[in-house]
Amino acid sequence: MKIGFIGLGHMGNPMCRNLLKHGHTLKVSDLVPELVKKLTDLGCEAASSPADCARGVQLVITMLPSSPHVRSVYAGDNGVLKGVAPNIPLIDSSTIDPHTSREVAWLAQAQGNVLVDAPVSGGVGGAEAGTLTFMVGGEARDFEAVKAVLSCMGKNIVHCGASGNGQVAKICNNLMLAIEMIATAEGMSLAVKLGMDPRVFAGIVNTSSGRCWSSDTYNPYPGVLENVPSSRHYTGGFGSDLMLKDLTLVTDAAKSARQPVMLGAIAQQLYQKHSVDGHGGLDFSSIILQYLRT
Amino acid sequence: MKIGFIGLGHMGNPMCRNLLKHGHTLKVSDLVPELVKKLTDLGCEAASSPADCARGVQLVITMLPSSPHVRSVYAGDNGVLKGVAPNIPLIDSSTIDPHTSREVAWLAQAQGNVLVDAPVSGGVGGAEAGTLTFMVGGEARDFEAVKAVLSCMGKNIVHCGASGNGQVAKICNNLMLAIEMIATAEGMSLAVKLGMDPRVFAGIVNTSSGRCWSSDTYNPYPGVLENVPSSRHYTGGFGSDLMLKDLTLVTDAAKSARQPVMLGAIAQQLYQKHSVDGHGGLDFSSIILQYLRT
Repeated sequence: MKIGFIGLGHMGNPMCRNLLKHGHTLKVSDLVPELVKKLTDLGCEAASSPADCARGVQLVITMLPSSPHVRSVYAGDNGVLKGVAPNIPLIDSSTIDPHTSREVAWLAQAQGNVLVDAPVSGGVGGAEAGTLTFMVGGEARDFEAVKAVLSCMGKNIVHCGASGNGQVAKICNNLMLAIEMIATAEGMSLAVKLGMDPRVFAGIVNTSSGRCWSSDTYNPYPGVLENVPSSRHYTGGFGSDLMLKDLTLVTDAAKSARQPVMLGAIAQQLYQKHSVDGHGGLDFSSIILQYLRT
Repeated sequence: MKIGFIGLGHMGNPMCRNLLKHGHTLKVSDLVPELVKKLTDLGCEAASSPADCARGVQLVITMLPSSPHVRSVYAGDNGVLKGVAPNIPLIDSSTIDPHTSREVAWLAQAQGNVLVDAPVSGGVGGAEAGTLTFMVGGEARDFEAVKAVLSCMGKNIVHCGASGNGQVAKICNNLMLAIEMIATAEGMSLAVKLGMDPRVFAGIVNTSSGRCWSSDTYNPYPGVLENVPSSRHYTGGFGSDLMLKDLTLVTDAAKSARQPVMLGAIAQQLYQKHSVDGHGGLDFSSIILQYLRT
């Protein structure tokens, strides 16, 4: 299959390499020439614009940093929608707000192209290993049409319902994840401050009603679990600034929808403070540093 | 074994009945004569005061509503410590603040009695079925000495470390539980407001990093799980006012320890509002009613 791929950063680059491994040919585009060169060195064709990237391919995939990028890459003067032939499917794997996602899908629809949203979880490690989870929003038949190609880059391809629901699943899961990580940070640090051994407390919580992924699989207290960021000074993993981005998206989406998220709003502020304190590059479990004397 | 039991309410009564079933004889005490009569009808001996209840028995168990009750039942003029013989072990199963728990244990120690804290989880249902979890704080040998008798009333008897650590484990677990329940309420209600099916969203979260006991075992959104309070109008289960009590204990303990609990403080305020709104008697998962239009 000939695929147009736009957005060749930390995530896009390894996703492209996995598509190449599966025998697809790629036409690629990015604003940064160095990122394009990394892939033309592997035999990809360079496009001069998003419109050019979408011309003459059988599928377009985008992996972009934010909503304004997605809007301009699809609907701008030299955008994908200007170059793409009718009936060619479009996949946006960016994590953006569900409203923008649905608006751009509607613009595509109006000219005869299906755009599904397919944000990912699994990070750079998952992109490299080809084990990403894709959360896909779109009609069932469109989900079936893109499932095979997504399987070249991911392990778990989940249909979340209609257009935009991939974004909703992603940001609402991460809303819960951020709050539960902070809950674990507060519970662990208080239990230790009040005299408990962190491993004994984690053992009790993890067989009780307080258990969560953040406590039993990704515990933020140093030394409780091996092979997690808290046991290697919070390096690797999912960056605090990426969590801050998702929390900002989800609290903005909640405001637009007039839906309260009291704990979500405080979680967003705590990650904002953590970033200002200089910890934005550390794994998101490092939020416990806000609670531990060091 | 002859056991003195003080505090014969919703929890104490079924705990006494399980001790009787296992062949123990009981001397019982409560401020409310009706509660005493329920047990003397079953063959228990009535005591005239806590001191009297502790006199001539081989073990004393207390199950009381709050810290001031525990302090007065043990250290008051007619308290347990006035009547009990040296070397008789004492078990307090009340949920109270760890500082009071340690102070009273110290007073007992000073006159030659060991007092272990052993708060429970599992509620009235667990007390009736004899399947409570006991979280025990005290020396290892004292834990071993009381383990057998606790097994008459519970299934899971966990040693949490030194005196007071049973309380720490209980209230810090419930801190995490309350925050995670609200996280689930915010995530579920926002995902639905933004267009997702609640069951589809729960299915995704429960295989992702947002999973927690509140989402996969006790989901607050009506109709997602069967046989949980959310599917029977929030009846049964663990009352919101009991969660409010534990959140007040844990945030007070955090203040005394000068340990921040930002989300815990908001959780305490949300359950306080929920109680003022008239929902204190509903299961604690009903906090989602603060987020759903009804």
